[in-house]
Amino acid sequence: MLKPGSTIGILGGGQLGRMLTLAAARLGFDAHIYTDVAESPAARVAAKATHASFADDAALAAFARDVDVVTTEFENVPARTAEALIAAGVQVRPGALALATAQDRILEKRFFESLGVDTVRFAEVGAEAELAAALRTIGAPAILKARRMGYDGKGQARITHTDQAGAAWARIGGAPAILEAMAPFQYEISVVAARSADGAFAAYEPGRNVHEDGILRRTILPAGAPPATRAEAERATRKIAEALDFVGVLCVEFFVLEGGALLANEMAPRVHNSGHWTEAAGATSQFEQNIRAVADWPLGPVTRLFDATMENLIGEEVESWPALVADPAVHLHLYGKRETRPGRKMGHYTRLAPLGSGPG
Amino acid sequence: MLKPGSTIGILGGGQLGRMLTLAAARLGFDAHIYTDVAESPAARVAAKATHASFADDAALAAFARDVDVVTTEFENVPARTAEALIAAGVQVRPGALALATAQDRILEKRFFESLGVDTVRFAEVGAEAELAAALRTIGAPAILKARRMGYDGKGQARITHTDQAGAAWARIGGAPAILEAMAPFQYEISVVAARSADGAFAAYEPGRNVHEDGILRRTILPAGAPPATRAEAERATRKIAEALDFVGVLCVEFFVLEGGALLANEMAPRVHNSGHWTEAAGATSQFEQNIRAVADWPLGPVTRLFDATMENLIGEEVESWPALVADPAVHLHLYGKRETRPGRKMGHYTRLAPLGSGPG
Repeated sequence: MLKPGSTIGILGGGQLGRMLTLAAARLGFDAHIYTDVAESPAARVAAKATHASFADDAALAAFARDVDVVTTEFENVPARTAEALIAAGVQVRPGALALATAQDRILEKRFFESLGVDTVRFAEVGAEAELAAALRTIGAPAILKARRMGYDGKGQARITHTDQAGAAWARIGGAPAILEAMAPFQYEISVVAARSADGAFAAYEPGRNVHEDGILRRTILPAGAPPATRAEAERATRKIAEALDFVGVLCVEFFVLEGGALLANEMAPRVHNSGHWTEAAGATSQFEQNIRAVADWPLGPVTRLFDATMENLIGEEVESWPALVADPAVHLHLYGKRETRPGRKMGHYTRLAPLGSGPG
Repeated sequence: MLKPGSTIGILGGGQLGRMLTLAAARLGFDAHIYTDVAESPAARVAAKATHASFADDAALAAFARDVDVVTTEFENVPARTAEALIAAGVQVRPGALALATAQDRILEKRFFESLGVDTVRFAEVGAEAELAAALRTIGAPAILKARRMGYDGKGQARITHTDQAGAAWARIGGAPAILEAMAPFQYEISVVAARSADGAFAAYEPGRNVHEDGILRRTILPAGAPPATRAEAERATRKIAEALDFVGVLCVEFFVLEGGALLANEMAPRVHNSGHWTEAAGATSQFEQNIRAVADWPLGPVTRLFDATMENLIGEEVESWPALVADPAVHLHLYGKRETRPGRKMGHYTRLAPLGSGPG
């Protein structure tokens, strides 16, 4: 077990890194943020921060010397960054396999399939010339997504008719891609779960996610999924975590089909927006849970204490804070970002209601 | 209402300042810690820190320019420090009257009396020569306390027989003192409450405090005090807060006598150790509540969600952390202090039990 007073290195300096830092502080740990972005919400609450490129070997070596373990707030950590840290003798949790799998939509879907976890039908599109054949295989409507570096709906284009193929290819920037069938899903749920190096596993109850314009709008607990669906989602998440020898918190999103069957959509090898409700309504927040897992501490209880709706504050929506803080059922979390931009996640709030009353 | 992104200045850099900083961060505020101690647990999580004497006018002026409001984690802020900040145009909350009253045990007790709040019998002891007369008035056993700068049982000496007077005087360092009668109390409770500039007031349910060697050992909720006693304690606390035009969180300790009558013992014009349970078992933590009050935000709900026992981790007791983090009923908070010393508060934990089940 990592001793209090140790330093936890965190790759990335956004709101997830900030919330990890605050959770680490309560347990007596210092955080050291490594970010390539000058203005970092996480760095402002961390004991130390390094502002450098993820390709800066000297900065990575100094960071590795200063920290006792490394975790991450984002999946797109370059493979060579993780390798450099591991070579410098520090543990990176989650490890290189989990990061590489989550970075590449094709690898990720093949990995799901290899475990017997159903996913949407997909085809690899390495070049524009392959798109027509992929569309014949998958059919329209379908979604063309860049294989790598997509988030919050970025790097995606919907293809309703085959004659939109060229425009879609241009929209995602002509990068290697995946074409995914549109699943006829009723709703989406996500399982946020933690796994320790000793194999201990704890899944929070899945929440129901509502997206708008590709960005998570809200997460609702309880999700209203049938018990068998919930159990299957947790089983699949555990299978995924074990196959990756995962250490930390991960999130797997699932489409729920009519009848309750599941299709895995994607995974995030880190704390996740759809788990933010755990800070206000869970016995242990996902941020504390991630710190516990990477510090080899026992996982905390994942009991849900309230019915809850977590709502993101995107762009100018953050200006609603005066009404939110006046509402006694609302637990507000603002990220301290200096600049409000359209589409930027500025904060979130969780509206609480007594257990069993339905989300507030 | 102070806008998120503003900077809250905090006088003092210990664990209370650290917990205030963490609470401020969640609401989108930066904290700027002002401390005269080199190693500060609070500074390690704050956006900014000034390490300077409380008499350093230049440092105070720069601090005042950087912050939007000032609050404090300790009562012994020198009067001229508060004056310098106020003169520099920044609001200090709580204000000079509350600080001056809480700094001086004689002023404090006279203030209680002026409000009709019963307190223990006491006599002023300005010099050693006055001690014998004071002992005749108050009777033995009694407690001799330095008028100023005492905390955690420091600056106190018990006098069981009059012939111990000289030793007691020496023990408290020969400073101006107060002699207090030993109240025949059954137990102690404390009210932690918040007041806003607009007069809004919210008191947490009082906890029962157990001291050992002058240091708070644990706080237990529910306290088991009769409803009328609880109501009277909250009424007295409100009276005190209003008379001081208090803005922020304060704590008033009361002795409960047989039959349920109360004697006010002392007050703290700040968040208080006996309110730490609110972080784990309250709808709003006392730290968030203090930030809300000084930022002119509405006070949060003070509902208690669990039965709870908050236990301090003093000195080497902090080494019990591995067992504590493995207990799912325990909510642990470690202060990140670098050095473990006897009597030093290193952390605390709150053991939770369902409401109505009695403290765990």
